Amino acid sequence: MQIIYEFLADGFEEIEGLAPVDILRRGGIEVRTVSVNGHHHVQTSHGVTVVADMLFVEADFSDAELVMLPGGMPGALNLNNHEGVKRVVMDQFKSGKPIAAICAGPMVLGGLGILRGRRATCSPGFEKYLDGAEYTSELCTVDGNIITGKGPAATLPYAYTILEKFTDTETMRTIAHKMQYLQLIDEE
Amino acid sequence: MQIIYEFLADGFEEIEGLAPVDILRRGGIEVRTVSVNGHHHVQTSHGVTVVADMLFVEADFSDAELVMLPGGMPGALNLNNHEGVKRVVMDQFKSGKPIAAICAGPMVLGGLGILRGRRATCSPGFEKYLDGAEYTSELCTVDGNIITGKGPAATLPYAYTILEKFTDTETMRTIAHKMQYLQLIDEE
Repeated sequence: MQIIYEFLADGFEEIEGLAPVDILRRGGIEVRTVSVNGHHHVQTSHGVTVVADMLFVEADFSDAELVMLPGGMPGALNLNNHEGVKRVVMDQFKSGKPIAAICAGPMVLGGLGILRGRRATCSPGFEKYLDGAEYTSELCTVDGNIITGKGPAATLPYAYTILEKFTDTETMRTIAHKMQYLQLIDEE
Repeated sequence: MQIIYEFLADGFEEIEGLAPVDILRRGGIEVRTVSVNGHHHVQTSHGVTVVADMLFVEADFSDAELVMLPGGMPGALNLNNHEGVKRVVMDQFKSGKPIAAICAGPMVLGGLGILRGRRATCSPGFEKYLDGAEYTSELCTVDGNIITGKGPAATLPYAYTILEKFTDTETMRTIAHKMQYLQLIDEE
């Protein structure tokens, strides 16, 4: 069973936090949202309250195939200030397992020094936190096991990239087609 | 004060329901999410629980500038089975005020007969419910005061169309740029 954990902090960006859950669950992947504020209720950056699947203290990340960090402010700062999140990301990195972060989320990876010598993207203005990375400005950049995304609308290519990694190209394209993504990017 | 009300039924599609809230609030527009299931907690079509701003019985739609109907199944069916939602949509239509619906959501408009003689889009397979409309298959179609969208990824052009209508082109493009939407659709 492939399990993806996504960290939700107060101030996470709605599209960046929830479109990957939507897209990955369409592909049959188990995605568990993990609140890092100590409560199940998490507030998005534009005032929506979402109920996370579990609390950080309830999660056992040893079965994590991927951990995801959405952006949004102050969501990404809250992730960056959470020692547990940083420990899980570092453990994931040391195990050679994939990590995904979007928008301001990659600052957490930069702060841990795991982007050094890698290509990565993030929301413009946050490049300075990507310690030692080559900033691509792409919507989505994959370098080895590190997947980064640029911002809200980039969540779509970012989530489809992750979906393809955990399924296959045909499954990804079928779901992208059904969601009108291929029409949006003029690939039909 | 411009107020937009969005109906949330159990089974609403995450992106269709929440990306417009995100995008429109970025433009300073007041968006109020209205649960139609009698409780504040509403379940999305892929198992996320969201807390709506208010219950249907608490809302006074007389100040509505726009009402929005997301899709997702069974979300759109639940909207279509809600007499209060249909009454508000019909009142809105009779007042000559705008109505927006996406994916399976336009079936509610079709069932009320308010798409007759109009151009409209919706999720493929739901055209048969758009009584008397000319189906465009576009990502977003505007005909007078009726704005329709095709599905999840189409939520972006749909929401930016609504944002532009309630602000101006420059505001819309500034927000679309900051969200990396213009890069996504290759318009930068």
